[in-house]
Amino acid sequence: MRIIKSEQTAEKWGIFEIAVEGPSGGNPFTEQEISGTFCSPFETVHTPGFYDGNGVYRVRFMPSFTGKYTYKIESTFGEAEGEFSVTEPSPENHGIVRTSGTFHFAYEDGTRYFPLGTTCYVWDLQSDERIAQTLQTLKESAFNKIRFCVFPKHYDYNLGEPRSYPYEGTPMDSSVLTKENFVQYVGRAEGNHFDYTRFNPEHFRHIEYCITELQKLGIEADLIVMHPYDRWGFSCMTREQDTLYWKYVLARFSAFHNVWWSLANEYDLLTEKTTEDWEWYGHLIRHYDPYRHLTSIHNCHAFYDHRRPWITHCSIQRQETYRSSELVNEWRERFFKPVVLDEIAYEGNIQYGWGNISGEEMVRRFWEAAVRGGYPGHGETYMNENEVLWWSHGGVLHGESPKRFHLLKDILEETPGCGLAPWENTRWDEVCGVPENEFHKPVKSYYLFYYSFMRPSFRDYYFDDETEFSVRVIDTWNMEVTDAGTHKGRFRIELPGRQYMAVQIRKTDL
Amino acid sequence: MRIIKSEQTAEKWGIFEIAVEGPSGGNPFTEQEISGTFCSPFETVHTPGFYDGNGVYRVRFMPSFTGKYTYKIESTFGEAEGEFSVTEPSPENHGIVRTSGTFHFAYEDGTRYFPLGTTCYVWDLQSDERIAQTLQTLKESAFNKIRFCVFPKHYDYNLGEPRSYPYEGTPMDSSVLTKENFVQYVGRAEGNHFDYTRFNPEHFRHIEYCITELQKLGIEADLIVMHPYDRWGFSCMTREQDTLYWKYVLARFSAFHNVWWSLANEYDLLTEKTTEDWEWYGHLIRHYDPYRHLTSIHNCHAFYDHRRPWITHCSIQRQETYRSSELVNEWRERFFKPVVLDEIAYEGNIQYGWGNISGEEMVRRFWEAAVRGGYPGHGETYMNENEVLWWSHGGVLHGESPKRFHLLKDILEETPGCGLAPWENTRWDEVCGVPENEFHKPVKSYYLFYYSFMRPSFRDYYFDDETEFSVRVIDTWNMEVTDAGTHKGRFRIELPGRQYMAVQIRKTDL
Repeated sequence: MRIIKSEQTAEKWGIFEIAVEGPSGGNPFTEQEISGTFCSPFETVHTPGFYDGNGVYRVRFMPSFTGKYTYKIESTFGEAEGEFSVTEPSPENHGIVRTSGTFHFAYEDGTRYFPLGTTCYVWDLQSDERIAQTLQTLKESAFNKIRFCVFPKHYDYNLGEPRSYPYEGTPMDSSVLTKENFVQYVGRAEGNHFDYTRFNPEHFRHIEYCITELQKLGIEADLIVMHPYDRWGFSCMTREQDTLYWKYVLARFSAFHNVWWSLANEYDLLTEKTTEDWEWYGHLIRHYDPYRHLTSIHNCHAFYDHRRPWITHCSIQRQETYRSSELVNEWRERFFKPVVLDEIAYEGNIQYGWGNISGEEMVRRFWEAAVRGGYPGHGETYMNENEVLWWSHGGVLHGESPKRFHLLKDILEETPGCGLAPWENTRWDEVCGVPENEFHKPVKSYYLFYYSFMRPSFRDYYFDDETEFSVRVIDTWNMEVTDAGTHKGRFRIELPGRQYMAVQIRKTDL
Repeated sequence: MRIIKSEQTAEKWGIFEIAVEGPSGGNPFTEQEISGTFCSPFETVHTPGFYDGNGVYRVRFMPSFTGKYTYKIESTFGEAEGEFSVTEPSPENHGIVRTSGTFHFAYEDGTRYFPLGTTCYVWDLQSDERIAQTLQTLKESAFNKIRFCVFPKHYDYNLGEPRSYPYEGTPMDSSVLTKENFVQYVGRAEGNHFDYTRFNPEHFRHIEYCITELQKLGIEADLIVMHPYDRWGFSCMTREQDTLYWKYVLARFSAFHNVWWSLANEYDLLTEKTTEDWEWYGHLIRHYDPYRHLTSIHNCHAFYDHRRPWITHCSIQRQETYRSSELVNEWRERFFKPVVLDEIAYEGNIQYGWGNISGEEMVRRFWEAAVRGGYPGHGETYMNENEVLWWSHGGVLHGESPKRFHLLKDILEETPGCGLAPWENTRWDEVCGVPENEFHKPVKSYYLFYYSFMRPSFRDYYFDDETEFSVRVIDTWNMEVTDAGTHKGRFRIELPGRQYMAVQIRKTDL
């Protein structure tokens, strides 16, 4: 077995990769197997490798400790051994994001992580130019998570060809598609000829490029591994083909510390898949991802049972027209896991009700979710001549909401403890988050009130007679934070009688 | 028995009143009884009279037919007989409002009545000047119903003395009341000395003046007979005292065609009253009001059981912070009676969440309710130096919502049939009302769509291949109605991508 590539060092939570030469005849994707075992005094990790085309096989590993490692590669075509050393991570590498304190998140190194996500389903499958533009936009934004697909997308505003396909083969002639007839092509449309046993490594290499670029920006890649917006048949493969796909995805992407697994977008629209199938994919992840990346499954109508042990957090699409973030309290109680609102409608003006809320309403939903201890997500769907919509294609943002998320992020980062929980003494006409520690117990020294669409001209507060609090009034829409002094006992805070106000109250000696 | 007053004629649905002299010694309110029986070939009505002070007793009657009537007055102090004739009603007098076609309303003469109400709890107990101002404001408004109280009101922003009290006696010194301590005085506070068996007729005469002035404006008087915002003990009287009060109210006000009975505001805050009490008041109304005026009971937390036979329609205070009008469909199904939303929060900026929504949100709730076949109500609570808030005191309106109700009223009046019902084929991201006839069957020729906070840039419609529809786009906030042409089969309507848009679609030959 000839080793083509094997560095001498890697950084902790970085990628150590070995590339070897192997057979290219027959179907290497199905006929060959390769895996690696990586050992240090602190861990032994077994991880599958994958065929990357042109007779090259790769095995990737993400070390979780510094110091000396040895490795052993085993395959159907030979073996190899070696060693390397792992250095301290670079300052911006905090490791994998994990759940923390039941309802929240933190990086492996303990740094808290408050997800504020966006969705650009196939930004990764656009032109180089648009991808660069999207990365630039993300860099300037407050987003620290992005949801996107491995498979290309077929849907209204998404009728063109992707930059590449995940499999060898040829697609149908998409020039026959119109806004009126595209629904007739959903699923496995005539004229598509793909070999679901032969991957196109270039497609996956490109996605790795995108994941890496996100890593540089400190953004988590919430990878949507399956989805129903399909005309090429990728949503209707057999169990065996799906398994081959999942194993390939897991072997290629697991070593990237910023990857999350989203089993599907709108899993319940994949009509050929059963609960048994989803459980099987969940099993595959637990089997072939040795790092236990965050794992979720996103609904259209009914929630998947987020209590399942392989699901790390709720990935929620709202189920109602008039309430979304307001239900965070309920979902926390029901699933007892972090609540990530990956779809609470998008800011925009397209014809669909899920894609035409105002910037004000989007920001309101963000604060409603955050103050209740949930983690809101964004998307944008503004009509334009070129039909380049952030929600699918990335590019630039046109909306009013994104610039307001910086303030929310700053305020969230001031939270003591693990993150916010809905305060049980909240009055009916306000929302209030209080910090909770890792034991799901409230930290009684900090209150973040939010008044949503209500417009009080003042509010009265009382916590106890002794504690001195410093108070700030936050205009979440106009992005103004005003010092409202220090107070004790019963006190009144004057407010401007406008919508979207928050009041932050914290112990002066906090 | 000496008759002081008895006209020769009355108009149909007007008031025929007889005044007689009687004893003024002892307690005429409890010791004397008087009633009248009014006969025409078409009806015989027995109705109680009342003592109006200064030795004068009155019996009032509202005739429902034209032509000759005879009457007989019976009392504990003598009898009298006479006759009079009833003329056609004046053009603006359409009679009592009744329920119509399960979920709607119409006047006795068949004219449809679409309630658009407001609430000014004690506008009637303010100065002459302010009352005149309120009447002028109402005249210029789209409101055709107003909720107000017989008893004075004790509450935040309502700590002063009313212009008069319903009983003989002396109130406590109200100068001790402050915004901070007023809650300690709720109920029967020390220092109030009223005789709950001796009415102050002037108080009631003045309310009759207010009812009459409303009549001239074509506005229904939704009289709140009991309420919990009290320091004088009127909310904590005995069963016997309550009965005396109800009989007096019914004897005085029943003959006014524009009166509705609201048993209470927030009945469930009258903690001393039981369901048995409320059922008793309902029984008294059915016994002493021969005209069967509309009767309802308004909640704070839990709804009263609006299915009770003496309740003609649901008088609803929303039970949730985030949904109000959106639940009309549910309430229609649950109670199978007209749904009047008497409290969906007020436009304003006071400290309470029920009194600080925006004009936009108020207008949105109005349209949401109306398109679902419910009838929304308004209130206004803007802070001001003099603490004159429309919600309690009347005066002038400061809000942005009231001027927008004229358009809603105009559009509602274009509805064929009895009124609107939620269309069962409505898509999830729209609301659509279709007219229903008196048999609760849809009239398939008219659709009123509403897009609420959503901002579609266009919407596609399809009803059938044959029918030609004329379409109008309604900007409910900017009060602009735009002709969008005639259409058949599948068609698309362009919209401005703004919030609060409605689309009216009707058969061209309707």
